[in-house]
Amino acid sequence: MDILTIIEDKKQGRALTREQIDYFARGAADGSLPDYQLAALLMAIRLNGMDARETADLTEAMAQSGEMLSPDVGGVPVDKHSTGGVGDTTTLILAPLVAACGGKVLKMSGRGLGHTGGTIDKLESIPGMRVELPEEEFLSAVRSVGCAVVGQSANLAPADKRLYALRDVTATVDSVPLIASSILSKKFAGGARAIVLDVKTGSGALMDSLEGSIDLARAMVDIGFHAGRKIVAVVSGMEEPLGSHVGNALEVKEAIDVLSGRAAGPLLEVSLFLGAQMLYAAGIAENAQKGEEMMRAALESGAGLNKLEEMIAVQGGDSRICRDISLLPKAPLIVPVPAEKDGYLSHVNGTALGLAAQRMGAGRVKKEDIIDPAVGFVMEKRIGDYVKAGEIICTLHARDEASAREAEEKVRAALTFSENPANKARLLYALVTPEGVSHLSE
Amino acid sequence: MDILTIIEDKKQGRALTREQIDYFARGAADGSLPDYQLAALLMAIRLNGMDARETADLTEAMAQSGEMLSPDVGGVPVDKHSTGGVGDTTTLILAPLVAACGGKVLKMSGRGLGHTGGTIDKLESIPGMRVELPEEEFLSAVRSVGCAVVGQSANLAPADKRLYALRDVTATVDSVPLIASSILSKKFAGGARAIVLDVKTGSGALMDSLEGSIDLARAMVDIGFHAGRKIVAVVSGMEEPLGSHVGNALEVKEAIDVLSGRAAGPLLEVSLFLGAQMLYAAGIAENAQKGEEMMRAALESGAGLNKLEEMIAVQGGDSRICRDISLLPKAPLIVPVPAEKDGYLSHVNGTALGLAAQRMGAGRVKKEDIIDPAVGFVMEKRIGDYVKAGEIICTLHARDEASAREAEEKVRAALTFSENPANKARLLYALVTPEGVSHLSE
Repeated sequence: MDILTIIEDKKQGRALTREQIDYFARGAADGSLPDYQLAALLMAIRLNGMDARETADLTEAMAQSGEMLSPDVGGVPVDKHSTGGVGDTTTLILAPLVAACGGKVLKMSGRGLGHTGGTIDKLESIPGMRVELPEEEFLSAVRSVGCAVVGQSANLAPADKRLYALRDVTATVDSVPLIASSILSKKFAGGARAIVLDVKTGSGALMDSLEGSIDLARAMVDIGFHAGRKIVAVVSGMEEPLGSHVGNALEVKEAIDVLSGRAAGPLLEVSLFLGAQMLYAAGIAENAQKGEEMMRAALESGAGLNKLEEMIAVQGGDSRICRDISLLPKAPLIVPVPAEKDGYLSHVNGTALGLAAQRMGAGRVKKEDIIDPAVGFVMEKRIGDYVKAGEIICTLHARDEASAREAEEKVRAALTFSENPANKARLLYALVTPEGVSHLSE
Repeated sequence: MDILTIIEDKKQGRALTREQIDYFARGAADGSLPDYQLAALLMAIRLNGMDARETADLTEAMAQSGEMLSPDVGGVPVDKHSTGGVGDTTTLILAPLVAACGGKVLKMSGRGLGHTGGTIDKLESIPGMRVELPEEEFLSAVRSVGCAVVGQSANLAPADKRLYALRDVTATVDSVPLIASSILSKKFAGGARAIVLDVKTGSGALMDSLEGSIDLARAMVDIGFHAGRKIVAVVSGMEEPLGSHVGNALEVKEAIDVLSGRAAGPLLEVSLFLGAQMLYAAGIAENAQKGEEMMRAALESGAGLNKLEEMIAVQGGDSRICRDISLLPKAPLIVPVPAEKDGYLSHVNGTALGLAAQRMGAGRVKKEDIIDPAVGFVMEKRIGDYVKAGEIICTLHARDEASAREAEEKVRAALTFSENPANKARLLYALVTPEGVSHLSE
């Protein structure tokens, strides 16, 4: 086995064998293969592709390049992953609801970098919350509560870590097999047997076209088929943030609002849809429709909120926040942003909103940056809403006056108003399962 | 200007601008670009190609990445390059002949590595010969004698040096624009304005198919067109060594034999053909046919041998070898290899013969290896010849008994005899000029 033959084979457009894929994933993880050979191979993969079997092999090889959790959590370990998005707090809503329905949600999550927030950063805004649990404690939390969310272990899929960093600097990010295997390798290593994916589509998403997003979704579902794991993928829009709250403590508050029945809308709808798929994928609901009924019942009974409370408690956090959101960190300055004239909100630049929040202190520019859990903003209007001049369109939660002024300017620049009525943003586009692609109507 | 955009553009199949090509060639030469980004770019170039204008730009950018000779040698500086081959001593024959006809042959040559010998190594078998001349001395030799051959300066086309080394370890050697620009960048930096290329075709050549070899020839001729230099390319066969002598001093001896009129055959014919093209390309002969007549006249009058004598003298070598070849290094053991049975010589594995000579001490396995100038062998038969059992097919010039025994075995293994008559090996296939491709009949 030698790397030159592997590069040569892929350059010639041939499919690589499982042994070849294992060899280069191992060499990426242990450092025995140099960057330049991996870079040449990544470009050959980007240009000549990989078939479904190769992509599944790469996923498993990268997962097996580091530690593998094989969790005994008293049920099928189920996980959910979203390919990004601003103001996307679905995990904090669906994990407790799925747990309340008997699911075992085992979630390792990343920190935010750039314009999207990370679930781990959101959880850390809860006083006392521990997101770095030893493996046994993590698994025991999943066993007893039904859900736990922790930071990704450093030794999870180290081959992926190396290749991911190289892709970023060699213009080989935009490859469906490389994206799909990268996402799923960490899920496989984390022990998930059933996985529901939320593949975002549109401007700012990994794939901006619907076709591209469906291709990515299908590639990941195919990996599940070849690797003997149950995977379904939902393709959803990101025309505007799913929730109205952007910022760490603000998003935790919004999740509690939703679980308490005080808030509804797109964030709840997408959480219920994804959670229903999780229940079906984990074999708890006989179909997705039954899953959704179970999710709604858990929401209405308050069982979901109870589970969030239990999860926070078992991870050392102050679970009283679930009943008293005033215990969450608060920003010193709350500044309403009024509309300057009448009009329909017709377009929202989600990436620009994310960057505005990051700039306020809610996100990181560099990995070492320290996050301010309290800052961010609440959007008071959604695409399609009619707004009168002077009406509040957004409420800023800022550190100081200067930061508020800058954020106001950035938020205003991210919003487009029109004299003509605008349609609401579309939430769900397609559901991809091993059986095929169903286009969803709303 | 940034390298990621350059990689991205080539990945998307777009043509790179001259500025982009300059940027990455400079970054390759000065070390500011890392190997992994160059590796990804090389694979993108290998898979998506480069058009003629890009290839010419890359050639010039790599040439200009180090020192550039702009020689004043009292005429059009002309050079010749062969893409490899065992027993190819054409340079030592055509350079003096072209100089005798008034040409200015300015040749920087490499050392041999692997199975092919280098002209510099051959020259160093001449007692006293200096192949590392200061630039002014080199140019003055070309001015006064009409030809000089020296080793390549270390600072010639450093961008090519870096990319060439990377291609070797990233499976990106087999790219026509990369091969063409690599070869010509060194010729451009060396100051040649007229260049004749001998592109080998067949097993063991850079391009094994005739179409591939013609593509490479055409790519190089196109570079000349775009870069304002006169370039023509000959596609020739390498079914068997051009000359009968393989080994450093042995090949010098053969060149002297040819220039003295004592030997003829394929080596002479190809030398005359290439030299005639050089005279035409340099504007000395009004057409190639006239060029060939001039070459033959210089051979017959002994003017070519005189020029070789002058060149050796001006480079500090013992020029008496031209009249007394016994002054060249001699191997202690001369061993004839007889045929084992009757038959026609039907196939010669040139690469295997080259490796046999290398193993005897005539070539290097590693760059640091020291060459034995005296060893090698003389093939007494060519493809198509009928041989009777006991007749001598090859004469070994060996260091010792063990080495002779091993060489005999390797030479025998490189030769195939058949009961059926076999055709002679074809020498010349095509001539490629800016006007088009002419297929040559023999």
